[in-house]
Amino acid sequence: MAVYTDISEDQLRAFLKPYGVGELLSYKGIAEGVENSNFAVHTRGGQFILTLYEKRVRREDLPYFLGLMEHLATKGISCPLPVRRADGEMLGELAGRPAAMVTFLEGIWMRRPTPVHCAGVGAGMAAMHLAGADFGIRRRNGLTLQDWRPLWKDCLDAHPAMEAGLADETEALLAHLERGWPGGLPEGNIHADLFPDNVFFLGDELSGIIDFYFACTDALAYDVAVALNAWCFERDHSFNITKGKALLDAYHAVRPLTAPEIEALPTLAAGAALRFMLTRLYDWVTTPEGSLVVKKDPDEYVRKMRFHQTIGSASEYGLDTALRATG
Amino acid sequence: MAVYTDISEDQLRAFLKPYGVGELLSYKGIAEGVENSNFAVHTRGGQFILTLYEKRVRREDLPYFLGLMEHLATKGISCPLPVRRADGEMLGELAGRPAAMVTFLEGIWMRRPTPVHCAGVGAGMAAMHLAGADFGIRRRNGLTLQDWRPLWKDCLDAHPAMEAGLADETEALLAHLERGWPGGLPEGNIHADLFPDNVFFLGDELSGIIDFYFACTDALAYDVAVALNAWCFERDHSFNITKGKALLDAYHAVRPLTAPEIEALPTLAAGAALRFMLTRLYDWVTTPEGSLVVKKDPDEYVRKMRFHQTIGSASEYGLDTALRATG
Repeated sequence: MAVYTDISEDQLRAFLKPYGVGELLSYKGIAEGVENSNFAVHTRGGQFILTLYEKRVRREDLPYFLGLMEHLATKGISCPLPVRRADGEMLGELAGRPAAMVTFLEGIWMRRPTPVHCAGVGAGMAAMHLAGADFGIRRRNGLTLQDWRPLWKDCLDAHPAMEAGLADETEALLAHLERGWPGGLPEGNIHADLFPDNVFFLGDELSGIIDFYFACTDALAYDVAVALNAWCFERDHSFNITKGKALLDAYHAVRPLTAPEIEALPTLAAGAALRFMLTRLYDWVTTPEGSLVVKKDPDEYVRKMRFHQTIGSASEYGLDTALRATG
Repeated sequence: MAVYTDISEDQLRAFLKPYGVGELLSYKGIAEGVENSNFAVHTRGGQFILTLYEKRVRREDLPYFLGLMEHLATKGISCPLPVRRADGEMLGELAGRPAAMVTFLEGIWMRRPTPVHCAGVGAGMAAMHLAGADFGIRRRNGLTLQDWRPLWKDCLDAHPAMEAGLADETEALLAHLERGWPGGLPEGNIHADLFPDNVFFLGDELSGIIDFYFACTDALAYDVAVALNAWCFERDHSFNITKGKALLDAYHAVRPLTAPEIEALPTLAAGAALRFMLTRLYDWVTTPEGSLVVKKDPDEYVRKMRFHQTIGSASEYGLDTALRATG
């Protein structure tokens, strides 16, 4: 839960003025998200989410994030549409922080996604990839292969008493990925954090994709690998091939995966598992006790790292080989 | 900020069914309130606040709280209206906790109330007192004179190293109040926690009074004393007589204070300051570091305790003596 910065009604009224959304009716801090401060804002003009960007988000990245949301929304992807001010800007400043307002999306995120939801996110992600292809700004993925070793070193420095087994295992996987990380795959603008809490549904229909603050320009199949990790494992950390099949086949039906993408999927999935293991581990060992940040156990992703190293081909994730495209 | 209990969409849908509010569209935890878990819920039928009552609220008190809100709302007081289920009940159960849904009220609470807002809360409180006069259930104030000494003893037990000056001062005020606590004042149903974050405004107009979970049957003037403490001091803890006058005169214009109430006001105000000092002190000394509960500094109320003991008559709070009623 996260409201790091409280704002007064006077501050908010002054901030809202150039957005032309009418009289302020109410605002309440939302206990969701861990990076920024979010408020549900009602005005005469509608319902919005106001985000104050806290220190983990770099100000120079905001035009990319907001621009991508606007690009996707105007292409019919259900994602928040940033509101533009009278001067054309999307970004304002509130309580000393960069801040933006986006439209409120109805929908519920699935605490317990079923295969239907996995198919929904697969198809929605593929549509998002297609819609994002002609977006004009690029942003490097700040949490990809080259960033993992420094992050791993920071974890070890912060926690020298790291369990030896985990340290050896991580080191081995990292070295393996450094040797064989797939290159030359189709690139585009990816979400890079497409977890269930970032995807809304109304009934079984996907109604919104939110939280683009890890979005970047990278291999499209890496986004698929992140989602596979986030949606297709059970609470006991076992892989559910029915969910894997639902997600991959639905993606493939909208944007056919190329042969090199299919071949790379186990490696990308192991890398994605390592990426979330490392950021969770980093937060685990560096967040002081008593912080408002909810720590997530890295162990879940240690198990996923292990699982993906046992996978020989994408068909073991459930991808229908009869549907395979040739790349 | 407070969401102690997360709920799944399946749990919520099952809970909502008997309320007949239509399809669930969204729900988000709200980072406000410190006692219960609150969610902003949108359905086809409208916007609601869902509250899960956590352990500090006694289940047997809920019919009083919900009944009082319904009673006041139907008498035209702007407060949340509990939604009744098809079986006539207001209270349901969700995630093992008693839970209720109330209508969403637009409005903003004033981080920096001006005298206009103090007048608004004075008039609104008086109207609430009049509207509550014929509500049929009674609830004893669980944080009044007889409860303060046990609470004070718990604070001393939990924190034996209490600063001697504070301990002596609190003991002296408590003994003084025990000797001379005003009896026989007009009673009714009071809010008992009418702080700025529990009162919404749209522009300068009061648009809602919320959070009735300390409401009880007690001296009406005690509610005035609580509000005087909560609304009429500056951030440097100095009393603002313009605000005091605005609040008291506006109250008096709607429900004239009797002569005994006016005479008792400094004692009631000192008691109210002690009550909030004690609960804050108790939380301060008993809440573990790292809890999600925001601790409030008891020192603010130590200063207010001192201030009220210097007051000779209610006119020093700003009450217009020319307006005085005879009781």
